[in-house]
Amino acid sequence: MITRETIATEFQNIQDEICQGLEMEDGKAAFIQDQWTHEVAGGGKTRVIAHGHVFEKGGVNFSAVEGSLPVFMKERVDDSATSFFATGVSIVMHPFSPRVPIIHMNIRYFETDAGDAWFGGGIDLTPIYVDEQQAQFFHQCLKDVCDKYDSSFYARFKSWADDYFFIRHRMETRGIGGIFFDYLKPDEQMSKETLFNFVCDVGRTFLKAYLPIAHANKSIAFGDDEKNWQLLRRGRYVEFNLVYDRGTRFGLETAGRIESILMSLPEHASWIYNHKVEEGSAEAETLKLLRKDVDWIV
Amino acid sequence: MITRETIATEFQNIQDEICQGLEMEDGKAAFIQDQWTHEVAGGGKTRVIAHGHVFEKGGVNFSAVEGSLPVFMKERVDDSATSFFATGVSIVMHPFSPRVPIIHMNIRYFETDAGDAWFGGGIDLTPIYVDEQQAQFFHQCLKDVCDKYDSSFYARFKSWADDYFFIRHRMETRGIGGIFFDYLKPDEQMSKETLFNFVCDVGRTFLKAYLPIAHANKSIAFGDDEKNWQLLRRGRYVEFNLVYDRGTRFGLETAGRIESILMSLPEHASWIYNHKVEEGSAEAETLKLLRKDVDWIV
Repeated sequence: MITRETIATEFQNIQDEICQGLEMEDGKAAFIQDQWTHEVAGGGKTRVIAHGHVFEKGGVNFSAVEGSLPVFMKERVDDSATSFFATGVSIVMHPFSPRVPIIHMNIRYFETDAGDAWFGGGIDLTPIYVDEQQAQFFHQCLKDVCDKYDSSFYARFKSWADDYFFIRHRMETRGIGGIFFDYLKPDEQMSKETLFNFVCDVGRTFLKAYLPIAHANKSIAFGDDEKNWQLLRRGRYVEFNLVYDRGTRFGLETAGRIESILMSLPEHASWIYNHKVEEGSAEAETLKLLRKDVDWIV
Repeated sequence: MITRETIATEFQNIQDEICQGLEMEDGKAAFIQDQWTHEVAGGGKTRVIAHGHVFEKGGVNFSAVEGSLPVFMKERVDDSATSFFATGVSIVMHPFSPRVPIIHMNIRYFETDAGDAWFGGGIDLTPIYVDEQQAQFFHQCLKDVCDKYDSSFYARFKSWADDYFFIRHRMETRGIGGIFFDYLKPDEQMSKETLFNFVCDVGRTFLKAYLPIAHANKSIAFGDDEKNWQLLRRGRYVEFNLVYDRGTRFGLETAGRIESILMSLPEHASWIYNHKVEEGSAEAETLKLLRKDVDWIV
């Protein structure tokens, strides 16, 4: 029987493994932990890293909280539901170097007192400059973990990520996408245990999919132009998170711990009025690829 | 008879006057203008300034657009309304110096094809360090223009600004507030012409209320600590605009011209995880004043 306690415990193991892997890659900074309690029930462990060799700012959060069901969730659940339990691991890492992509991962489990229960999650990559070979590697890692469970998962969840990580007001995707899924409920095909295993496997794919890219790129030299482009792309990241990201907005609406929710924002970001990229430049090449329905795996 | 053409013309005069005043104070940079057309009907003149002596980034926008009524506006208007006309002037200025406050002003007129029509607007100041004497001067200017029209306006609109410019997830006001008002419709007490005059007078109070403060502070020396605090406060400004600001969200939802809508964002902003101010510091003193219901006029 997969209980909320089983899930929360395994999610914390995944948090530990990931922090260890990221610290090793960084080689300088260590995560510091803030343990906190939710005003209603539960709490979390927010782990943040700052000013390392590789990572300028980032966080790997675990939380397990209970509360009254927010109004905007009511349409998703049984009419009789009044409260929720939610647990998850949520990561955003902002590297110093514009050559190392921003990475995001989230796995989560949600249940109500009326018996609704589902899993969600995703991983997506936001390169400042898209390297198509690395993009292919990244997507292949995600396809591999999906294929272990259901041959339709990768295509469905890749396209879901394209739709989800879309900055509508800019008509750009946030990065090269990845996978995104939500409301995965047990059925005749897939038990709760299998879904749980899938979600944990996604969590454990994080290091496999990201560290080789970070490692390969972290020593590439860069100049002011690349840095400025990174600051602008981070501005887009801020726009996405504050305007569209469901996790962020859920946190803001349910009065979650604000510092844990907004740890996803970069240390520095920029906006320049009506910024245009030079035709044929590396920035222009990247912009061309920030769209839905790119088949990264060729 | 106050037509939409009369209003739009006068709003453009106000835009001209304000740009001229700001350029004179800056002494180096000039506004550049982008004239644009709305995809349905109308358009605007976006004027931006960058890298001046005083102003790092800012904009003074005029727009007059028509379109189909967005769903979220329907509750505000007659059932038979299907389209809207909106015109306004909207300003945000981000100075270089942390000693010069960020300023925002907006005046607007809205009407539907069903005959609904109202004015809205406001001015609010976001000092990085609050100077209470200057805060009093600023609020007194706003009270003076309000008192010319209705002795209840200042108290009502000051408190409306306190509620509106509130960053709920931080439990902080954006700055020291000012005045904010919306849905001002003609009635027996006040004709459309009087409301129009009031709104234009608010627009013309902008330079009177802001330039003396900018002028007095622009040459004060500052160091890295003050600059870093400014970048964090600008981060809060970004949070407010992307999460709560109605004008921004209206623009994003109605597919307005994105560069004009987001010109309100600063060139540089920062976020530091769980940043704490030192007790007794100037930053701590400012934070204490970023709350509702401060009587600035003593």
